[in-house]
Amino acid sequence: MRPKTPNDSRTLMTDMVLPSETNPLNNLFGGELLARMDRAASIAARRHSRRITVTASVNHVAFNRSVPLGSVVTVEAAVSRAFKTSMEIFIDVWMEDRFTGERTKANEAIYTFVAVDDTGIPTEVPPLQPETDLEKERFAAALRRKQLSLVLAGKMKPSDATELRALFTS
Amino acid sequence: MRPKTPNDSRTLMTDMVLPSETNPLNNLFGGELLARMDRAASIAARRHSRRITVTASVNHVAFNRSVPLGSVVTVEAAVSRAFKTSMEIFIDVWMEDRFTGERTKANEAIYTFVAVDDTGIPTEVPPLQPETDLEKERFAAALRRKQLSLVLAGKMKPSDATELRALFTS
Amino acid sequence: MRPKTPNDSRTLMTDMVLPSETNPLNNLFGGELLARMDRAASIAARRHSRRITVTASVNHVAFNRSVPLGSVVTVEAAVSRAFKTSMEIFIDVWMEDRFTGERTKANEAIYTFVAVDDTGIPTEVPPLQPETDLEKERFAAALRRKQLSLVLAGKMKPSDATELRALFTS
Amino acid sequence: MRPKTPNDSRTLMTDMVLPSETNPLNNLFGGELLARMDRAASIAARRHSRRITVTASVNHVAFNRSVPLGSVVTVEAAVSRAFKTSMEIFIDVWMEDRFTGERTKANEAIYTFVAVDDTGIPTEVPPLQPETDLEKERFAAALRRKQLSLVLAGKMKPSDATELRALFTS
Amino acid sequence: MRPKTPNDSRTLMTDMVLPSETNPLNNLFGGELLARMDRAASIAARRHSRRITVTASVNHVAFNRSVPLGSVVTVEAAVSRAFKTSMEIFIDVWMEDRFTGERTKANEAIYTFVAVDDTGIPTEVPPLQPETDLEKERFAAALRRKQLSLVLAGKMKPSDATELRALFTS
Amino acid sequence: MRPKTPNDSRTLMTDMVLPSETNPLNNLFGGELLARMDRAASIAARRHSRRITVTASVNHVAFNRSVPLGSVVTVEAAVSRAFKTSMEIFIDVWMEDRFTGERTKANEAIYTFVAVDDTGIPTEVPPLQPETDLEKERFAAALRRKQLSLVLAGKMKPSDATELRALFTS
Repeated sequence: MRPKTPNDSRTLMTDMVLPSETNPLNNLFGGELLARMDRAASIAARRHSRRITVTASVNHVAFNRSVPLGSVVTVEAAVSRAFKTSMEIFIDVWMEDRFTGERTKANEAIYTFVAVDDTGIPTEVPPLQPETDLEKERFAAALRRKQLSLVLAGKMKPSDATELRALFTS
Repeated sequence: MRPKTPNDSRTLMTDMVLPSETNPLNNLFGGELLARMDRAASIAARRHSRRITVTASVNHVAFNRSVPLGSVVTVEAAVSRAFKTSMEIFIDVWMEDRFTGERTKANEAIYTFVAVDDTGIPTEVPPLQPETDLEKERFAAALRRKQLSLVLAGKMKPSDATELRALFTS
Repeated sequence: MRPKTPNDSRTLMTDMVLPSETNPLNNLFGGELLARMDRAASIAARRHSRRITVTASVNHVAFNRSVPLGSVVTVEAAVSRAFKTSMEIFIDVWMEDRFTGERTKANEAIYTFVAVDDTGIPTEVPPLQPETDLEKERFAAALRRKQLSLVLAGKMKPSDATELRALFTS
Repeated sequence: MRPKTPNDSRTLMTDMVLPSETNPLNNLFGGELLARMDRAASIAARRHSRRITVTASVNHVAFNRSVPLGSVVTVEAAVSRAFKTSMEIFIDVWMEDRFTGERTKANEAIYTFVAVDDTGIPTEVPPLQPETDLEKERFAAALRRKQLSLVLAGKMKPSDATELRALFTS
Repeated sequence: MRPKTPNDSRTLMTDMVLPSETNPLNNLFGGELLARMDRAASIAARRHSRRITVTASVNHVAFNRSVPLGSVVTVEAAVSRAFKTSMEIFIDVWMEDRFTGERTKANEAIYTFVAVDDTGIPTEVPPLQPETDLEKERFAAALRRKQLSLVLAGKMKPSDATELRALFTS
Repeated sequence: MRPKTPNDSRTLMTDMVLPSETNPLNNLFGGELLARMDRAASIAARRHSRRITVTASVNHVAFNRSVPLGSVVTVEAAVSRAFKTSMEIFIDVWMEDRFTGERTKANEAIYTFVAVDDTGIPTEVPPLQPETDLEKERFAAALRRKQLSLVLAGKMKPSDATELRALFTS
């Protein structure tokens, strides 16, 4: 399969924060943002694999900034590394001040999707070819995250997680 | 502040999978389940702290089982460890076969919430007192997860993450 | 068919009152609560019968207490009596003060569901065996409610509604 | 206060049954119809009283006919009797066959609303003057329903419910 | 095919403006009103044709009046002219003051729908027979609008749009 | 005020067609697409003006292609001409085949928005400076559309609509 770049799957979902999506502090509900990111990541995974894709895991999401009612929010998703049948999707969330237009990063998230055929069986996906420095850095870190995930799930011995182990033993 | 037990915050949210919540394979959307878990976890965090609570992070969610349209899903959330102003919430998701009634575990997730006052400033929460073996085990693991989270965010040196480090160096 | 107890069908649906569900006084819309209760009752009916179930009637719902935005609401539904193919479901709605955590009863409701097969034909359900005093009291009252319902629909002569008639002629 | 007629409050809400509103048999969810009827009844109550109105009770709803996906449904609501601060609303639900256009009655329901001021205190409403035979019949029956409701709530002695008692003792 | 009158397709959709449908000025979102009008127009088109109908175009919608949260809005749609397989639907939107009950026109819109068979192929519809003066006026204007639409789409030469051309050359 | 380019306001809203947004032919509802386009256009208008913006009119929308359930749809909106307090927004809708990834144009639409201050009073917006050939062509046509809109509303004499008149008299 011919490799693809992160740009091939990059997905921009810009939308407003509507009144029905806010919590008692008048900020976007965490759960609502999780659902938007899932949809954007799912489209990126589909663009990379041209397959039906299903959410396999949410690796980590930090909600550093609250997003007020009426904000314009852009969810930007792109594949950061492809494994055999799964893809790690890196998501950046941007928030735009209603009046100044200033754009700041609201948070970031990492989801993993699996490509499946019509009967739900996992199926192979193209490799990823990172281009920019940021893409290369995320590509490298994706392997450590996968090892960590396998270790935490008890499916890999810590001693085999070479890249990850280096963090703690150096 | 008087300690509370996981039972004090335990929250059961049983509901059906409606047609508007399904993906092209007729299973519950990952994003929809993330939003339900966020609401249940938010109620558990509020029951523990009696404060407004906001999602701080989603630590890890694995979607092991797909949940078909029409299933009855129970999201069960309880505080697994309390820190100074934040709480780790452990979430178990149960799926019930429509006809046999058999209950199986669909997936589990870990969210972190922060308690805030009316102006959004973090505010102290009661400690957690685990009771059952499972609660004690989750309580212990929560500390390793917090260290991991600090290490990955670059806010703690790997060498200071004593409990976590033990995993990789033993 | 082996009898079941109310506990076998008991369903707890705890969720928040979201901004999109409130009326101009910032309280939960009656219609929204009716829909939540219908879903919870439908799950209870399914747990009792292990069949597809459809709403047959709403017998009576009194909205005694308004439920403010941001409240945590628990809808608790359990079968109160089973007839040949239909089940009466008794629903208690609990409201939880956001700050004190105090739980008060917001209202109660009685729905009737019918179990059907895949083509929509009514099909037999197990009998109910009440256990607690409250369950026994609701079980007895369910018969009077059924008679009242038949009398009001012109399907039973008032003189045949023995239990109900006693109320008015004693 | 000048009396009003049922026509002054008559409200027609015609809409389609959308895919997001159907149950596993592809018919309109009972809960969804309950919510639609609540909104239509609330508008009728407001048109009669020109006040904020809140749902006080749902007296009885029978779901005789299932309403398939894609049907056109008309909810028709009008005040059937006014008491001091409350109004009984009678609701007829019509279903229209997609192809023949034939209109059949799907079900009927009776809701009670209370008029309140801005602080939620019940406030007086105009009397109702029924005009047609059907309106007069519903007007008369509304009194018996109110007595029944008071008797069942333990707020009226059965022996004082003159009109209702006649049903059972004649 | 026997002609039909605008009354045969007239559709009244009365509903409230809910909190989840408002913009930052607390008025009904333009997009939400467009969607409501589309559903009402679709029902009118179906009542005229007794076919599945799909939106072909929105000719013009002017939002002259903002519609505040809590308003009662009536969307009134009726076929204004039928062509071979398409129908022009004229939509009047009425707004009702919550307290005085005064009814004012909020805006009007013109949609075009096409009748299709089960496979999506356009299919013939009955002619329209306007009755009132207003209906006759809208019927005549509909032809000019169709010519304008064809001219703007480059499917008709301006010199052939006889009725429309008269506007600019007299 | 410094002029802005179409790129300054360009807004990309990529999302899936969910089951709850489809009509009986399993295609995206016209009304749903109208609402999505309204949100995207509203963001573009805000990016150009840095003000609250409200929908003034929908000038023309042609639904040439149906958009099936599960499609990925991109709504692309940018200001095409600015007047004193209003902006014309040109919207292109792209549809992406789920498997081949082929992108085709589904339809286009033109909306007009007005910039307002906090009290809803119209307020001045920056001029638009088109850059590409397509942007220049849309910029020129916007003036004719404005004249047409004024003529149809009876606010401009056809003889004064110089640019528009040329179409019909040459």
